Amino acid sequence: MESGEEGRSARKRRAILEAATTVFLDTGYQGSSVDQIAAQAAVSKQTVYKHFADKQQLFTRIILDTADQVDGLVDTVSRTHADTNDLAADLGELANQFVATLMQPRVLRLRRLVIANADRFPETTRKWYEQGFERVLGTLSSRFEHLADRGLLRLDDPLLAAHHFVGLLLWIPVNQVMFCGDDARSTDADLARYADAAVRTFLAAYGTS
Amino acid sequence: MESGEEGRSARKRRAILEAATTVFLDTGYQGSSVDQIAAQAAVSKQTVYKHFADKQQLFTRIILDTADQVDGLVDTVSRTHADTNDLAADLGELANQFVATLMQPRVLRLRRLVIANADRFPETTRKWYEQGFERVLGTLSSRFEHLADRGLLRLDDPLLAAHHFVGLLLWIPVNQVMFCGDDARSTDADLARYADAAVRTFLAAYGTS
Repeated sequence: MESGEEGRSARKRRAILEAATTVFLDTGYQGSSVDQIAAQAAVSKQTVYKHFADKQQLFTRIILDTADQVDGLVDTVSRTHADTNDLAADLGELANQFVATLMQPRVLRLRRLVIANADRFPETTRKWYEQGFERVLGTLSSRFEHLADRGLLRLDDPLLAAHHFVGLLLWIPVNQVMFCGDDARSTDADLARYADAAVRTFLAAYGTS
Repeated sequence: MESGEEGRSARKRRAILEAATTVFLDTGYQGSSVDQIAAQAAVSKQTVYKHFADKQQLFTRIILDTADQVDGLVDTVSRTHADTNDLAADLGELANQFVATLMQPRVLRLRRLVIANADRFPETTRKWYEQGFERVLGTLSSRFEHLADRGLLRLDDPLLAAHHFVGLLLWIPVNQVMFCGDDARSTDADLARYADAAVRTFLAAYGTS
């Protein structure tokens, strides 16, 4: 019985987090209420408060949970072959996977939610930046270091090079969506073109061949 | 008398716009009310409504007015010497001016306000993007084209190169503030280092010497 209770409670908690994510992404933090979240989760407001002290705690939980979801991207980056024989092709593949992951509509809406609330809850969003964004960059940076050790890249500052790689890749399409709204997402053909151009520019600057 | 009336009315309109900008930047669009804006402008709510139909119209006006404020940056970019004899130094100067303009706390808070509301008012924020961001990039792009004509840069796509220049320059410090809040602004020394690294990487990829 008790484990059944626990199971139900855990399921409700998950349903509330899922509902809160949907509501926050749809209407922003300030535009959302615990009432809406309870309705979306099909639970009572009391049940929400049994699991979470308030709306802010829900926001914090969701933002920090999504920071962990970059694990997949970290794995992808880690697999970038240190033993590559075709760096341009391998970086091109990585660039396309990066773009495919970060240009997902839900990821972009989460990015907007974080930015919109960074001045309200800087401690939470800073953790998200460190545990998500910076972890990916750190992994990419150590891959670049290996490639430099093999003589395939020439760089003094691997972390700066990692930032440059990602900036070349994402500055255009991410800004377009951030400034012009979700419907301004680049076509897949444009995204592939940006990825190709980013890799070419990166290798022209940091490559050795 | 009539021009006195007009003068007073125009002054009040300006005061309301100034007050609305402050209130929106401080508490976001959803967190702001016309009551707050009227109080901040030291006018009655009725006076606000005499000039602006509603809160949304105020937001639209402010966002579009600030798009025009990039004129200064466009001028700076335009002055990038097509007849330069030291491209690295001139691009370095441009990079530092770019960073100094775009990393101003008020500009960064405006950027956050635009991003936070891009899904609510995409028509307004898209115009801001086109009249501000894209105009600067277009000017930079035509400067790069001149430099390519003179054999100082090698590029197929000047607009893409302009995006790469700005992305290399701003990706790191802008994201830090966007994700971690206004207090996460890089030190001036770090900004100078990012500018220097961006110019070096850009010239390694696009330079001819």
